[in-house]
This record gives sequence, structure tokens and C-alpha cells, in this order.
Amino acid sequence: MAKTAGILLIGNEILSGKITDANAAYLCRELRVLGVEVRRITVIPDEVDLIAAEVRAFSSAYDVVFTSGGVGPTHDDVTIEGVARALGVAVVRHPELTGLLRQHYGERLNEAHLKMAEVPEGAELLGAESLRFPTIVMRNVYVLPGVPEIFRQKFDALKERFRDAPFHLCCVYVSMGEGTLADHLNELLAGHPDLMLGSYPEFSNPEYKVKVTLESKDRGYLDAAVGSFLDRLPKEAIVRVER
Amino acid sequence: MAKTAGILLIGNEILSGKITDANAAYLCRELRVLGVEVRRITVIPDEVDLIAAEVRAFSSAYDVVFTSGGVGPTHDDVTIEGVARALGVAVVRHPELTGLLRQHYGERLNEAHLKMAEVPEGAELLGAESLRFPTIVMRNVYVLPGVPEIFRQKFDALKERFRDAPFHLCCVYVSMGEGTLADHLNELLAGHPDLMLGSYPEFSNPEYKVKVTLESKDRGYLDAAVGSFLDRLPKEAIVRVER
Repeated sequence: MAKTAGILLIGNEILSGKITDANAAYLCRELRVLGVEVRRITVIPDEVDLIAAEVRAFSSAYDVVFTSGGVGPTHDDVTIEGVARALGVAVVRHPELTGLLRQHYGERLNEAHLKMAEVPEGAELLGAESLRFPTIVMRNVYVLPGVPEIFRQKFDALKERFRDAPFHLCCVYVSMGEGTLADHLNELLAGHPDLMLGSYPEFSNPEYKVKVTLESKDRGYLDAAVGSFLDRLPKEAIVRVER
Repeated sequence: MAKTAGILLIGNEILSGKITDANAAYLCRELRVLGVEVRRITVIPDEVDLIAAEVRAFSSAYDVVFTSGGVGPTHDDVTIEGVARALGVAVVRHPELTGLLRQHYGERLNEAHLKMAEVPEGAELLGAESLRFPTIVMRNVYVLPGVPEIFRQKFDALKERFRDAPFHLCCVYVSMGEGTLADHLNELLAGHPDLMLGSYPEFSNPEYKVKVTLESKDRGYLDAAVGSFLDRLPKEAIVRVER
């Protein structure tokens, strides 16, 4: 079983079409390379009750959970409160974060800034040399900011801790349409039920009609499935094989 | 109360980082212009049980639901079965769709192609001149394909039926940081509790520090809130106002 992950994006600005999220796609690509299976992405508004319900569900369903957005000093930054409520703990001010904020803002430091020192009680802080502020982790929930540049810095600083056995992937590009290909795919799955098998048609590509993806964490299992698939296909239908 | 919508993206290829979805962002922008409030986006794998559970929850929570992906002739196209199971009906072959497929494929028509004639029992077909195939609608659930070009064609052909009272938006760009701005925003919300208020910092923009969005479906309510916000802010902090 692969390590699993859930991604929770928090932000009215995504749902109202004001910004296009880039963090989920980034995280999906990165986690795949690390061997982690993303099972769900959900986008919800900046509302404490919704955040609490989702975080609770995600935290028990997946090995790791990433939240993006809703951290900051204003009224619509309610992720920390949502995570705390989800896990049944209070929100407290963390002395280390208070110190960092005091260093950063100096005499300008006010109550709004100090909201950024709040954490769910019992949270861990994960720092790194590349980061100005550490990342807040509560049990298996990693609280990341919505700003893509900082989101990436924070994830990159942590990512090795998520590494699992890699996925092995083979792509087979074929010149037959999905309708004709379907039987081949069904037979392949019947013989290799644990194969992760995807079929993606291209309607305006002159080179091929369908990209077939075969994947497994077990290299030998994948190789056997690829062999049996290529044997099954008419030679002239195979445009290209990529491993 | 605005009309609400939920968007359900179905596809392993999104979760595994092989493709970046563009349909949800498109739909969020389009629905916002139509006056519809998107309350949730969820991305799940091509698994019937998961699809059924989500569609059931979405269909009762939101006025309209859009699914994207998982329609086609292969093993991983299980959206129709998921929608049927969600709403407690059987999957049946629709004579009109069978006819269209027969026209399109002629003698090449096979069982796999005919899978694309399947609908949840009781589904409506919504056709349009601009479309080759009609859109399948089951109660409040609109089943759309994952291929962005066809997704857009299908949505565009239908979109007028979703139109609701418009959202009115005003953006105020300010030169003060969020920490200083927070009190102004809180006071504004205290006086105008129904205002939709967003605060989006920019960390590397030389022109302004925060973009504040004020929104309402009630033009008078918005105007009053904008007036009171602009009165409250120090004049020199207001970079630009956009309506």
C-alpha cells in the first residue's frame, strides 16, 4: 500500500474564480515523484466549521494532509482555528513564533500580527535554513500558506520526510481509438488486477490516438504487464513506448 | 441567498500529477459571472464507490452539481455508474445516444462504444446546435467530459440556465500591510456583516501591498460598505479603487 495524502485548499478567492490555484497541481506532481498517492483534493471557503469538518475527515483518512491558504493576520484567515477545532484542541500563542514576529516587525508588532503566532495546542514547528518562518504541523496535518512561492519553499524544505517506495510508470502511445482499445485494456486488467491503468484519448493529435499509462510500485509486476500488453496489441498500433 | 454549485472532478490523472486540471478554474470564473456561488470543488479517483458517495452528498448540498471526467468507453470511465448509484437508479442504454453513436461509428460500432450510450435511468439529454452529443443531466447533476475543449463547449451551450442575480465587486488596492489593515477590515465587517470581504497580500508588487475585495449581490449594500471603508482608511494608503 502506498502512503496516502489529502490536499485541502482553503480560499474564497479560488471558488469565486479570482485566482487559479497552482499549489494542488504542484503538490500532486511532487508527491507522485516521492511515491505518495494523493487520494483527494478539496477546495472550500474560509469558514471555520467547514475547515474543521474537512480536516477531521482528511486527518483520519490519509497518512498525511496538506492545507493551503487561510493563514495570515486578517478576518478571513481561519485555518489554524479550523485545524484546532478539528482535532479538539485549543488555539494558543507559540512563544517561538511570537519571538520571530517580534524580530521581524519590531515596534510595529500589533495584535493582528500576533495572530500569526497562533497554533493548535500541541503543534510542532518544523524549521529549515531556507525558511524565514517554520511550518506548523499538527499530528499529520501540515499547514501551508496559499502564496505559491512560499508554499513551495515550505514544501521543498520538508519533502524528504514523505518519501515512500517509488511508482514505476510506462506510457504506451497507440494509434487505435479507445473504443477498439477497450477490450485490450479489460483483458490486461483481468490478467494483472493490481496494475494502475489509465487511458487518455487525444482528439487532435496527429501522432497517436490514446496514451495508455501502466503503473505499479512493483517493477517486476509492471514489466510483466507491459510485456503482456505489447504482445496483445497489433504491432502497427504501437506508436511509441516510454519508460 | 445565491444559487450554489459544487464541482466534482473525477480522474486519477489529476491526482497523480499527470495533467493539470483547467476545468474547475474555468467553471469558477464562468459561474461567478453568472451570479452562482461555487461552494466546493473535490477531486477524486476513478472509483465508483467514491463517486457515488460524493455525487450523493453534492446533489443534496448544492443547487447544481457539475462532474468532469470519467465518461468514455474504457474501464476507468465509471462516472455514469457512480451518478446512477448515488441517486439510486439503474444504468440504462439511451436510444437517442445509441442512434447518435451508430451514425458516428457506422459499422465500426462495438460494445465499448455503446458504453457511451449509457445514462442513469431517468436522465435528461440536453442538446444544442453547437454540440455533437447532448449533455446528460440527472436531477441537478450535469455530467461533463474531462477534455477541456468539449467541457467548455458543453458548458457554454447550457450556461444561461444557471444565471442568477449578479455579484457586484469593488477592489481597493492599499499600500499598508495586512497587519495594519486588519483592524480596518474588522471594523468594516462589524458595520456590514453581510459583506463578502477578501484580503489578498502581494509580497513583491511595488504598486500596492494588499488587494481588498468587497462584494455583495445588493448594489446599495456594497456602495455603502465601500464608502465607509474608504472613509475609514488614511487617504495616502489608497492606491486605487476598481469597480
